[in-house]
Amino acid sequence: MGYRETLCNTWAHHDGSPLYVADPTPGLGDRVELSVRTADALGVRRVYVRTAPDGEPRFAEASIDRASGSETWWRCGVEMVNPECGYRFLLHTAKGPLWLTAAGLSALDVPDTTDFTLTTHPAPPSWAAGSVIYQIFPDRFARSGRIAGPVPGWVRQAEWDDPIPWGSPHALQQLYGGDLWGVTERLDHIAELGADLLYLTPFFPSRSNHRYDATTFERVDPLLGGDEALRALTGAAHARGMRVIGDITLNHSGDGHEWFAPESAVRDDFYYVDGDDYATFAGVRTLPKFDHRSAELRHRLYEGPQSVIARYLEEFGLDGWRVDVAQSAGRHGGIELNDQVAALTRATMSGHDALLLAEHQFDASRALRGTGWHGTMSYAGFARPVWSWLARERSTEFWGVPGPIPHYGGADLAEVMRRYSALIPWRAYTHNLTLLDSHDTARFRSIAGRDHQHLGAALLFTLPGLPMVFAGDEVGVEGVHLEDGRRPFPWDRARWDQGTYQVYRDLVRLRRSHEALRTGGLRWLHVDDDTVVYERAAPGQTLLVQVSRASHTPIAAPVAGASLTGGPSLRPGLPMPADGPAFHVWELEA
Amino acid sequence: MGYRETLCNTWAHHDGSPLYVADPTPGLGDRVELSVRTADALGVRRVYVRTAPDGEPRFAEASIDRASGSETWWRCGVEMVNPECGYRFLLHTAKGPLWLTAAGLSALDVPDTTDFTLTTHPAPPSWAAGSVIYQIFPDRFARSGRIAGPVPGWVRQAEWDDPIPWGSPHALQQLYGGDLWGVTERLDHIAELGADLLYLTPFFPSRSNHRYDATTFERVDPLLGGDEALRALTGAAHARGMRVIGDITLNHSGDGHEWFAPESAVRDDFYYVDGDDYATFAGVRTLPKFDHRSAELRHRLYEGPQSVIARYLEEFGLDGWRVDVAQSAGRHGGIELNDQVAALTRATMSGHDALLLAEHQFDASRALRGTGWHGTMSYAGFARPVWSWLARERSTEFWGVPGPIPHYGGADLAEVMRRYSALIPWRAYTHNLTLLDSHDTARFRSIAGRDHQHLGAALLFTLPGLPMVFAGDEVGVEGVHLEDGRRPFPWDRARWDQGTYQVYRDLVRLRRSHEALRTGGLRWLHVDDDTVVYERAAPGQTLLVQVSRASHTPIAAPVAGASLTGGPSLRPGLPMPADGPAFHVWELEA
Repeated sequence: MGYRETLCNTWAHHDGSPLYVADPTPGLGDRVELSVRTADALGVRRVYVRTAPDGEPRFAEASIDRASGSETWWRCGVEMVNPECGYRFLLHTAKGPLWLTAAGLSALDVPDTTDFTLTTHPAPPSWAAGSVIYQIFPDRFARSGRIAGPVPGWVRQAEWDDPIPWGSPHALQQLYGGDLWGVTERLDHIAELGADLLYLTPFFPSRSNHRYDATTFERVDPLLGGDEALRALTGAAHARGMRVIGDITLNHSGDGHEWFAPESAVRDDFYYVDGDDYATFAGVRTLPKFDHRSAELRHRLYEGPQSVIARYLEEFGLDGWRVDVAQSAGRHGGIELNDQVAALTRATMSGHDALLLAEHQFDASRALRGTGWHGTMSYAGFARPVWSWLARERSTEFWGVPGPIPHYGGADLAEVMRRYSALIPWRAYTHNLTLLDSHDTARFRSIAGRDHQHLGAALLFTLPGLPMVFAGDEVGVEGVHLEDGRRPFPWDRARWDQGTYQVYRDLVRLRRSHEALRTGGLRWLHVDDDTVVYERAAPGQTLLVQVSRASHTPIAAPVAGASLTGGPSLRPGLPMPADGPAFHVWELEA
Repeated sequence: MGYRETLCNTWAHHDGSPLYVADPTPGLGDRVELSVRTADALGVRRVYVRTAPDGEPRFAEASIDRASGSETWWRCGVEMVNPECGYRFLLHTAKGPLWLTAAGLSALDVPDTTDFTLTTHPAPPSWAAGSVIYQIFPDRFARSGRIAGPVPGWVRQAEWDDPIPWGSPHALQQLYGGDLWGVTERLDHIAELGADLLYLTPFFPSRSNHRYDATTFERVDPLLGGDEALRALTGAAHARGMRVIGDITLNHSGDGHEWFAPESAVRDDFYYVDGDDYATFAGVRTLPKFDHRSAELRHRLYEGPQSVIARYLEEFGLDGWRVDVAQSAGRHGGIELNDQVAALTRATMSGHDALLLAEHQFDASRALRGTGWHGTMSYAGFARPVWSWLARERSTEFWGVPGPIPHYGGADLAEVMRRYSALIPWRAYTHNLTLLDSHDTARFRSIAGRDHQHLGAALLFTLPGLPMVFAGDEVGVEGVHLEDGRRPFPWDRARWDQGTYQVYRDLVRLRRSHEALRTGGLRWLHVDDDTVVYERAAPGQTLLVQVSRASHTPIAAPVAGASLTGGPSLRPGLPMPADGPAFHVWELEA
């Protein structure tokens, strides 16, 4: 059994990146050339690729493309007979057959769930893969001073430096008064950080500071500057080469929504109303749930050019949407329209070169195979395993999972990340929004501590996905709880952690300037309790990343004779840096 | 990490069987009580059940139901808010949180794919779970001598004892002349074996001895005795308390089918015809593929009371169907109607108390969650792992997978079985057709040898699923290849392996007389290279099964003080039998 237990990730590899897949956006009927690399130590005699065109299993033998040092590269084509092509490799070795799927190498049979997947579905916008997302909770980012006039009755006005009244019944009414003009004024900061995709949590009028309880989708909240402020923001952002996405609840509105008013002609059609009762999100009475069986609702919200989804792209210059509680939208008792909500929304956005992301708190794999969301928020596949590896404070809430946060080693981190990524097409994996925290969590810094925040950021910016910074993370904002994490941005630079800011700026720059980090493949080269080492590789560019949460026993450098730059001196066979907490990045010289 | 590596299957358990799920066939809105057992050695402090009603994650705390010896039983309800309820358990232990899903216990997070699943979809017929299936390839089972008249031109008539001309171009035309009257005459044999569900491979007229190339679905092949012979067979079977299912190709017909004839008015609608070209099954020109976009085709074949599917249940007394190459039916290029074929076929059968099984050669999990097939042929989840554990001849073909057959240990056997069963509702797992071989494989006996055939049979009749015997297996028929495995049944008892026959009869009787084997839960208690030990448990009845492929180091009996009957004497803490190849079954005394 020793052979099996030591099956190493580096003994054979394939993923959906350009190094291994010649055409990541094939059309129906196209033939796509695939490459797979095997370590010569594995003794591979033959390689087959298994597909199932029209459901009929088929094995095609791969041929040797080239040998390079201690590796052999094999090559084989697959035909896109159907919109989705699942494939896996069968390796015949001297010691028996092995399967290679997105879950790795296995001497045992593996169900199809982790097959690699290529699809002919329309690809995400080409600009997305290179983006670094900056999340702005508009009430808490920046005040322009341009908002005047009376405030609605629900508002409890606060000064910028007032503490968050978390746990108080007034927590959601306390308005700090950030606005979209304020965001426009602070684009310099975002540009200095290097982020280029603004994600605004909702900007629709509502009755709370988070605005997930819209009262209308017709206009931008006047408290944020109204329509004009949003148009100015997208215009200014575009002028700088930045993009902007909005945030919409397709699952519910606020109970103050004009559609839900007692006199509304569409109330009974748009919501599950039964006398005085109605369906809600998670039992919250102020959040009535939409009934997606209504064609009129679909057309007003997300289906076709007159929908809210389309109009804000068209008329306000938005570059996409993030959909709130997407895992619930369209799902109610015996009614299951969730896939349809996703597919129609995406279809409406086609032609707009726009990005469609969605909130999912757990496994989103079933929603990421088809024509719906381009990606989802990767709480399960990224944030939770990172927290589990790096948290200092374990007793905290863990996104609704009864605590404590589990203790992961580095091998666990990699294993859980792979369990989730193995279930989805590479395209979805690389368009999942990766994050350390958000407006819905405590601040990662408060959970992990400063040093470990930096390690988390290193993972965030060097692993696949669309990395997101929740505004304030980059200067060391704290927050021990979801509401506490929404502290107003500290514009006084004296309050910034300049070291943290530098780490973020360096990492964003690293990310944006390296194709291998934006689109490259991922190989885990070494994982143990305190250290992970992985490779990101694109054609012509290979980066090596080491992240160590503590000082540790030295490990041999897993490089094969190449010269490396960027980190401490590294030579094949000699030890890698054993200090920690620390991270290092090297680039292999061509 | 020792803690994790030794996480034992017996430390916590739940499955979909009646011991753990109070109502296996709930309706929408019902509350279902769940039980989960944890070993006190695990130090469990709290247990939560996680569900996601309407997509909204929810954790509910379980309460202690009872403590029994070294175990604690916890109890919690889940509400069937949606047609499918996925659930998992979170165990808080002194050493950290653990997840319990159908894949077992894990200290690491697990994607939702292996969540336990309850559904409100209509249940399979209640008679199915207790059935033992007997597969009959009509041309090769029994000749009545009642078939007279000229034979079609394609036929090459053979004597009953002629060798199978496998590898020859005539292999599919060599007709041995078995017929349905012959089956009726031999029901005594099937009754003596104890099987009670006859599965007939196709009985429609065709141009080959396997008849998967139907020329019409209007009548039973006159070579088999025609309609009258089928009616007589189902009548005689029902009179003995047996049931009969047919076999139909919903993916294709033969190119001699009346619908495919050049003059047929429906040819262009029912098939993908493009001039002289047409779509086929697996490139075989004689098997044109159906176009399921045609409403007329659907109605004639499987949708509604006038369909072939319905008429043979109604008019011929069939008790269900097995659908050939079900994984391909309705799937062609950009056209994806596979789920619809399954759902409509099943809907047509509702009200008939009939069973719907389907052929799937690999992972069928995506086709087993909804309203389609009740179960599929478990090549992947049963047959392949058993062959991998027990095969003697490894170089043989392995259902289209380029050989050799891998070498599994007992732990691998259990692991692969669980990888597949974890992806589907318990209801589908227990209604999958389990098999050692079929008309589409070599005979298991020729691959594994006589002794290991008996072990395979022990697994077949004591693990979950609907066990199938391919006619002849029970008397030791050999066959080194798919076509060779279709040897005519040797009615001369002098040619039977009486020992094998006795093993099969005993196992069938054991199966049919024990509720725990028909519907009970499954716990793997011990697995090593040469031995597996597992428990099957229903309320009030617990069986312990040991299967050893070789003599081995003694292992301690994993029983807790109970008295056992049926096998060699067994006492807690003392060694279990260490002989092999051997299998033993014990029943715990109440």
